[in-house]
Amino acid sequence: MDILIINGPNLNLLGVREPAVYGNTSFDDFMKRLRSLYPHIGFDFFQSNHEGAIIDRLHADGFNGRYAGIILNAGAYTHTSLAIADAIAAIETPVVEVHISNVAAREEIRHRSLIAPVCRGSIAGFGLDSYRLAVEAIARPE
Amino acid sequence: MDILIINGPNLNLLGVREPAVYGNTSFDDFMKRLRSLYPHIGFDFFQSNHEGAIIDRLHADGFNGRYAGIILNAGAYTHTSLAIADAIAAIETPVVEVHISNVAAREEIRHRSLIAPVCRGSIAGFGLDSYRLAVEAIARPE
Amino acid sequence: MDILIINGPNLNLLGVREPAVYGNTSFDDFMKRLRSLYPHIGFDFFQSNHEGAIIDRLHADGFNGRYAGIILNAGAYTHTSLAIADAIAAIETPVVEVHISNVAAREEIRHRSLIAPVCRGSIAGFGLDSYRLAVEAIARPE
Amino acid sequence: MDILIINGPNLNLLGVREPAVYGNTSFDDFMKRLRSLYPHIGFDFFQSNHEGAIIDRLHADGFNGRYAGIILNAGAYTHTSLAIADAIAAIETPVVEVHISNVAAREEIRHRSLIAPVCRGSIAGFGLDSYRLAVEAIARPE
Amino acid sequence: MDILIINGPNLNLLGVREPAVYGNTSFDDFMKRLRSLYPHIGFDFFQSNHEGAIIDRLHADGFNGRYAGIILNAGAYTHTSLAIADAIAAIETPVVEVHISNVAAREEIRHRSLIAPVCRGSIAGFGLDSYRLAVEAIARPE
Amino acid sequence: MDILIINGPNLNLLGVREPAVYGNTSFDDFMKRLRSLYPHIGFDFFQSNHEGAIIDRLHADGFNGRYAGIILNAGAYTHTSLAIADAIAAIETPVVEVHISNVAAREEIRHRSLIAPVCRGSIAGFGLDSYRLAVEAIARPE
Amino acid sequence: MDILIINGPNLNLLGVREPAVYGNTSFDDFMKRLRSLYPHIGFDFFQSNHEGAIIDRLHADGFNGRYAGIILNAGAYTHTSLAIADAIAAIETPVVEVHISNVAAREEIRHRSLIAPVCRGSIAGFGLDSYRLAVEAIARPE
Amino acid sequence: MDILIINGPNLNLLGVREPAVYGNTSFDDFMKRLRSLYPHIGFDFFQSNHEGAIIDRLHADGFNGRYAGIILNAGAYTHTSLAIADAIAAIETPVVEVHISNVAAREEIRHRSLIAPVCRGSIAGFGLDSYRLAVEAIARPE
Amino acid sequence: MDILIINGPNLNLLGVREPAVYGNTSFDDFMKRLRSLYPHIGFDFFQSNHEGAIIDRLHADGFNGRYAGIILNAGAYTHTSLAIADAIAAIETPVVEVHISNVAAREEIRHRSLIAPVCRGSIAGFGLDSYRLAVEAIARPE
Amino acid sequence: MDILIINGPNLNLLGVREPAVYGNTSFDDFMKRLRSLYPHIGFDFFQSNHEGAIIDRLHADGFNGRYAGIILNAGAYTHTSLAIADAIAAIETPVVEVHISNVAAREEIRHRSLIAPVCRGSIAGFGLDSYRLAVEAIARPE
Amino acid sequence: MDILIINGPNLNLLGVREPAVYGNTSFDDFMKRLRSLYPHIGFDFFQSNHEGAIIDRLHADGFNGRYAGIILNAGAYTHTSLAIADAIAAIETPVVEVHISNVAAREEIRHRSLIAPVCRGSIAGFGLDSYRLAVEAIARPE
Amino acid sequence: MDILIINGPNLNLLGVREPAVYGNTSFDDFMKRLRSLYPHIGFDFFQSNHEGAIIDRLHADGFNGRYAGIILNAGAYTHTSLAIADAIAAIETPVVEVHISNVAAREEIRHRSLIAPVCRGSIAGFGLDSYRLAVEAIARPE
Repeated sequence: MDILIINGPNLNLLGVREPAVYGNTSFDDFMKRLRSLYPHIGFDFFQSNHEGAIIDRLHADGFNGRYAGIILNAGAYTHTSLAIADAIAAIETPVVEVHISNVAAREEIRHRSLIAPVCRGSIAGFGLDSYRLAVEAIARPE
Repeated sequence: MDILIINGPNLNLLGVREPAVYGNTSFDDFMKRLRSLYPHIGFDFFQSNHEGAIIDRLHADGFNGRYAGIILNAGAYTHTSLAIADAIAAIETPVVEVHISNVAAREEIRHRSLIAPVCRGSIAGFGLDSYRLAVEAIARPE
Repeated sequence: MDILIINGPNLNLLGVREPAVYGNTSFDDFMKRLRSLYPHIGFDFFQSNHEGAIIDRLHADGFNGRYAGIILNAGAYTHTSLAIADAIAAIETPVVEVHISNVAAREEIRHRSLIAPVCRGSIAGFGLDSYRLAVEAIARPE
Repeated sequence: MDILIINGPNLNLLGVREPAVYGNTSFDDFMKRLRSLYPHIGFDFFQSNHEGAIIDRLHADGFNGRYAGIILNAGAYTHTSLAIADAIAAIETPVVEVHISNVAAREEIRHRSLIAPVCRGSIAGFGLDSYRLAVEAIARPE
Repeated sequence: MDILIINGPNLNLLGVREPAVYGNTSFDDFMKRLRSLYPHIGFDFFQSNHEGAIIDRLHADGFNGRYAGIILNAGAYTHTSLAIADAIAAIETPVVEVHISNVAAREEIRHRSLIAPVCRGSIAGFGLDSYRLAVEAIARPE
Repeated sequence: MDILIINGPNLNLLGVREPAVYGNTSFDDFMKRLRSLYPHIGFDFFQSNHEGAIIDRLHADGFNGRYAGIILNAGAYTHTSLAIADAIAAIETPVVEVHISNVAAREEIRHRSLIAPVCRGSIAGFGLDSYRLAVEAIARPE
Repeated sequence: MDILIINGPNLNLLGVREPAVYGNTSFDDFMKRLRSLYPHIGFDFFQSNHEGAIIDRLHADGFNGRYAGIILNAGAYTHTSLAIADAIAAIETPVVEVHISNVAAREEIRHRSLIAPVCRGSIAGFGLDSYRLAVEAIARPE
Repeated sequence: MDILIINGPNLNLLGVREPAVYGNTSFDDFMKRLRSLYPHIGFDFFQSNHEGAIIDRLHADGFNGRYAGIILNAGAYTHTSLAIADAIAAIETPVVEVHISNVAAREEIRHRSLIAPVCRGSIAGFGLDSYRLAVEAIARPE
Repeated sequence: MDILIINGPNLNLLGVREPAVYGNTSFDDFMKRLRSLYPHIGFDFFQSNHEGAIIDRLHADGFNGRYAGIILNAGAYTHTSLAIADAIAAIETPVVEVHISNVAAREEIRHRSLIAPVCRGSIAGFGLDSYRLAVEAIARPE
Repeated sequence: MDILIINGPNLNLLGVREPAVYGNTSFDDFMKRLRSLYPHIGFDFFQSNHEGAIIDRLHADGFNGRYAGIILNAGAYTHTSLAIADAIAAIETPVVEVHISNVAAREEIRHRSLIAPVCRGSIAGFGLDSYRLAVEAIARPE
Repeated sequence: MDILIINGPNLNLLGVREPAVYGNTSFDDFMKRLRSLYPHIGFDFFQSNHEGAIIDRLHADGFNGRYAGIILNAGAYTHTSLAIADAIAAIETPVVEVHISNVAAREEIRHRSLIAPVCRGSIAGFGLDSYRLAVEAIARPE
Repeated sequence: MDILIINGPNLNLLGVREPAVYGNTSFDDFMKRLRSLYPHIGFDFFQSNHEGAIIDRLHADGFNGRYAGIILNAGAYTHTSLAIADAIAAIETPVVEVHISNVAAREEIRHRSLIAPVCRGSIAGFGLDSYRLAVEAIARPE
C-alpha cells in the first residue's frame, strides 16, 4: 500500500522555522519515523507553495490508483483555494485533510475550510501526529 | 491506560436507527472491536442526551487523572453548547473531539464547533473509525 | 388512534401564569376539552423543562408505532435545540410543530425554528387551538 | 359562515403541473372535497398571479364582514410582498396563512414570511390538507 | 403648472381605514384642500395597488412634459420595487418621494428606500402635509 | 422553430430613452434584424411592466410545446421576483436569461439573480446582441 | 413665531467651499432670502462642529417654548451621533431633519440616520430649499 | 428578607479550579462571608449544570413570594438559553444577573446575554463581589 | 476615600425631564442622599455633553491617584465613543460603568458597549441605585 | 480573425473525468467541432491550473492586438482571483467569461464572480456550447 | 515649507503613559528631533481630544495655503468620525493619515478607517517614525 | 545595506499600461531614481504574477539576513493570499507593505489587507513615492 503526502504553502518550514507554529521536528525526520512505524507502506512526499502545482499533482496521481489515499495539509490554501477543492472532488483517490495546529482555535479566517467538504475526513490539532492518524485512517485495520 | 468515551444526544441510536447518518454498526459491537484492537487500554463509555449530564461527567472524571484522555462526540451539542466547551476548558484531562460524519459537508449550522477550540484536536468524517483514530491520538506510540 | 403531546420549557405555566403570553386556560382543562372533542383518540401528555428529557421521550416513543403522531410545542428550545431537531429527524413517528403565539410576530430570535425543517408541518398563532389543529393534521379525515 | 380562499402566483398549477411541488390533486377537486366536508360553510375562491390583484381582493372583501376569515396561500409573494402584508394588516377580516409544502425545509429565501406577523396564524407543510386545517382554525368548535 | 400625485398600494385606504397608520382625513378631502391652497396648480391623481400600473403611468407621463413634477408615495413598494426605481430613473419628469409616516421609526425593512436614490428628494413624517411640502418643493418660489 | 422573447419592466423604453442604459436601437428595429438573421425561426414578442402578466404568459406558453425556448429579460424583476422564478421552474419550455448590460458591474442589488438558478443558462453584457446569443443557445447547430 | 436653525459639522462651509457638495449660495444669503419669504417668522441660527455644543443648544432651547420648531441639519453627525438623537428625543420642541443633498444617493454609511426616528419628519435632497420646506412643515397653514 | 442565589454550569468549580477564570475563593467560603456581612438576610443557594434544573428552580420559587430577589449567574447559559430567559420573564420574583468576569472583554459569543433584557439589572466584572453588589441591589437601603 | 462621578450626554436632564427614561429624582438630590449614605467618602461630580470634555477630565484625574475610582455613565457615548474607551484604558484609576436603564432591553444599537471591555466592571438597570452599587464596588468592605 | 480560449483550474479534466460536472465531450473534440463550425476563425487554446500562468498569458496576448477576443473559463479562480480580474481590466483585448455549468444553481460561494465586472459579458450554463456562444459574441455578424 | 501636525484623542499621553501603546518618547522630544532632521521645514502642532476642535482647526488652516500638508493622527476618531472625514474632503490642503501602531493588527473595530479614503495617503505601524515618513511624503524630493 | 523590493501580480504593467491605475513612470525608471537617491543602498527587485513564486522568494531571502528589509507590493494578492501572509509571519526579515493607490478609496474588497497584520507597517496612496517612503522606513536615520 502506498500513500502520498502533500504539504502546501510554508510547510517546507516545518521543524526549521517558527517552532511555536510549525513544531520542532523537521518533516524529513518525521517521514523517517513514519516509515519505521509503517514499514509495509510506501510513502511519497510532495511540497509546494504553488496552488497550481498542488492541483497538478492531485490530477497526476488522483486517477491512476497508485495510492490508497492522499494526505493533504493545504496550509493557508485550506481557507482560500476553491480550485484545490474542485481538484479533490474530481479525483478518485480519497483525500484526508490534516492540520498540525488546532485551526478552530486560531483566527476567524482559519475556521472555514473550503476543502473539508470534499475530503473523506479531517484531522486537526495533534501536531505532526495528525499525519500518522491520517495514515491510520487510510490503512484502517480489517 | 484508560480512556473515557462520551457520546452526546441521539448517539444512543448509533447502528440502530438511520444507518445513513449513524452508520450500521451498533456502538456496543464497535466497543467490542475497539477493546480487541487495544487490549491494554481500559475503555469506559457514557452516553447522555442531557447537556448537563455530559458536563457533570466531564467534571467527575476530568480532574482525577483516571483517564489518559476523553473522546467526546457531542453530537448536536457541538454546535450549541458553550457550557460543554467551558467544562472542557476547565478540566485537566485532554479531550479529543470526534464526529462520525463529515460535518463540514452538512448544513451551515454544523460548520461551527463551539468545543473545537478547547479540545486538543478534532477528527471528523471517518465513520466509527473516527473513535479509533482518537484512541490512536491519545495513545500515541513513543 | 393515540397521539402524544409534548410540551417544552415553561409550558407548565400555561393557563396559570402570564395570561398575555400563555393564555388563560390551564392545559389540564384544555386536555379535557380535547378528549371530549376527540373521544376516539387516546392522548398522552408529557412536559419537561429539560432538553434531554424531551429527546429521551422522543426516542422512547418514536420507534414503537404506539402513536399515530407526536404534537410538539418545544417552547424556546424551538430556536436553540439542534439536538431535538436531530431526534425528530431520527424517529419514525411523524412530529407536528405547534406554537400558541404567532412566533413570527415576536422577537427576531424566535423567527427561526431549528425543528421546523424536520417536522411534518407547523401550526402557529391560534392559541391553544393550535394543538387541536395538530390533532386534525394527524387524524385527517379519509 | 363563508370563507374566502386566495391563492397566489403559480398556484393555478396545483395538481396540474410539478406534482413534487404542487401535489397531485387539482385544486378544483380539492374544493369539492372541502365543500363536502364542510357543507354548512360557503367557500369562495380567488387565484391570481398579480400582487396588485390580491391586494385589490383583500380590500374588496376585508371590510364588509362577508367572510368569517380569509385563507391565503401567497406563494412566492409570501417572501417578497410587503404590500400584501400591509393589506392584511389594514383589513378587518382575519387572515390565516397556509403553505402546502414545509417552507422551512426549502431554500433560505423561503424561510422568512413577510405576511406571517400580520396573519392570525400560520399552517405549513400538510399538503392540501393545510387548507382544511385553516378552515378548522376559522370555524373552530364552540 | 400641473402636478401628478401617484399613490401606491393600500393608500386607497387613506382616511378610511386604520387612522393610526393612514391618518383620518380622506385623500379626496385632502385633494380639495390642496387645490384651494394652490389654485393655480392643476393636480392629477392616480392610485394603484399594482406595481406594473404605477410603472405604466410613470412612463405615460414621464416624458411628455405635461407635469412639472410627480409626487410619489409608493407605499410598501418603496422598499421592494427596483422596477419602479428604474422607471423613475428613466423618465424625465422629476419625482419627489413622500411618506405620511416617519418610516425611519418603523420596522427595519422600511428603513431602506429603493426609490430614494433616483428621486429628486424625499419628504417623510409630516402626515398628509408631506404632500403639500412636495408641492412646495416642485413649485418653489422664484 | 419558434422562440418567444419576453421583456420585463421598463424594457419598452429600449432604444427610445436613456441610451446609456437601454442602448440606442429600438427593439422593433432589433426584432427586424433578428428575423432577417434567422429567417427560419418564428419570433413572438411580449413586453410587460407587470410581474403577474409575465407569469401569466410563461404559464400560457410554457406547457404547450409551441416554443423551442423562451428568452427572458426580466429587467429589475430579475432581482426581486421569486414568483417569476417559480413560474420558470414550473414550466416545461426552457428559459434563457438575458441582460443587455453587464449586471455584475452595476449596483450590489443587481448582482443576485433570483431567476438564474432555474433558467437553462444566462447571457449578460453584450447589449442587444445578448438576445441573438440566446437565440443561438436555443437553436444550437447539430 | 420663531424657528431655530441648527447646522452641524462642516456646514459653515456652505456656499463658500465645495459647491458640488455644499451648493453655491452662502448660508447668510440664504437666511436673508428666507427672512424675506417669511417676514412674520423670527429665525435664529446656530452652527457648530462640536457634537456637544449641538446637544447643549438643543437642551438650552428645547424646553422653553421659545421656538415653534427646530430645523436640524446634523451633517455627518446624522449618521454617528446617538447622543444628539437622545437630546432630540428628550426635548419638547419638535425637530425637523433636513439634508441639502440626497443622502440616499451617497455612500452606504450615509443611508442610516440615527436621528430620523426621533425627529418629527425628514426632508432631503432639495438643496438649500430643504430648509424652506422645513419652515413650511413647522409653519403649516391653518 | 431571603435571597436565592442560583449558579449555572461549571460554577461548581468556583475557587476550586481555574483560578484565572473562576477566582480563588471557594463559593462556600464566599457564602460564609456574605452571611456575616448581611446577618439579617437568609441566603439559599442552588447550583446546577442542567438548563432544565435551573428553569425548574426558577418556577418553584419564582411565584411564592419566598424570596425578595434571585441572584442568577447563568454561566454559559447566559448566552445560549432562551428557555431560561423565558422562565425569568414568566416568574414574579425579580432576578439580578451577575457575572464574575467582565464578559464584555471575553470572546464575541459572550457579548450577547439572552437573559439580560428580562432581568431587573446586570452586574459584571467585580469577581465574587458581583454577588454582594446584587445583594445590595435587592436589599437597597430605604 | 474620594470618588469621581462622570455623567455623559443628556444626563444633565436626570430627574428634570423625561422621567420615564431619566427617573424622577434630580441628580443633585441623589448626590445628597449618596453623601448621607457614605459620609466618609468625598464625591466629586462632572457632567458634560462633550465627548472631548469627558476625555479631558479622565486624563486630568486618571493618573494622580486622587480618586479611588471613577463612576462613569457615558450615556449614548457608551455605544459610539472608541475615544473614551481609549482614555479609560490609558488611565490608572479604575472606572466602573453604570447605566440607569437596562440597556440590554432597549434598541439593538445600545446592546454593544465600547467602554465595557476596558472598565473594571459594569452595572446596569437599577435606576439611580446603579450609582450606589458602583460606590459599593469601589469601596468594597474589607 | 483569431480568438484565444483560456481554461482555468481542473478544466483539463473536461470530458475525461466527472461527466456530471465537466460534460462528456473532451475539449479536444470540442475544439475540432468549433474549428469546423467557424473555419475562418483561428483558435488558440491555453489551459493552466496556475493563477499566475493565466495572468502571464493574459498579459502576453492582451496588448498585441493578435486576438479579436479572449474567451475565459476561469473555473474556481472566477470566485477567488482578484489578480486575474485586475489583469483583465488592464489588458486591451476584450474578454468574455464563460461557464459550462449554471453557476447560479451551485453553492453560494460560486454565485459571486470577481471577474464578471471587468469582462465584456458573461455566458453560463449551456455546457460546452457556452464557448460557441462566446465565439458568436466576439465574431458578431455585421 | 510649513507642515501642520494634528494629533487626536488621547495622543497627549504619548511618551508619558502606557508605553506599550503610545511609545516611550514624549511627543515634545520627537518634535525636537523632527525639527533637527528637517531644519528648513516649519512645524506647527495641535492636539485635541475634541472632534469638533479638530474640525475647526482643519477648516482654519485648510484653505489658506499656509501649510504644504497636514499630518493627521486622528486616534480613535479615525474609526468613528465621519465629520472629520468630511472636513478633510472639503479642505484644499492635502492630509496624510498616520498611525503609530499597526492598526490592522489590533481589534476589528480599528480595521476600518473612515478618513483614509479622503486622505492623500496612509502610513501606519512605524511608531513615531510614521510621522517622519509623512513629512517625507509631503516634502518629497524633486 | 540591501533592500529587496517584491512586486506582485500585474505590477509588471507599471508605467506601461493603464496610467490611471499604475502611474506613468516605468518601474525601471523609478528604480534608477531610487538608486540615485539612496546610493549607499543596494536594491534587488523581483516581480511575479505567481502567488507561489512570491512565497518562494520570501522564504529564500527571509532568513539569511541578506536584506535589511523587504518592500512588498502584493497587488491583488494583498486581499486574497493568506499564504503570503503566513510566509511574511514566518520569515525574520521585516516586511513593509506598500500600495501605489489609496486602496481605502477603491472597491470594498480592497479595504481588507490580509498581509497588513503581519507586516511591520503599511504605506499606501503616494504613487510610486510609497516605495521611497518604505525605503525611508527601513533605513531610518539614527
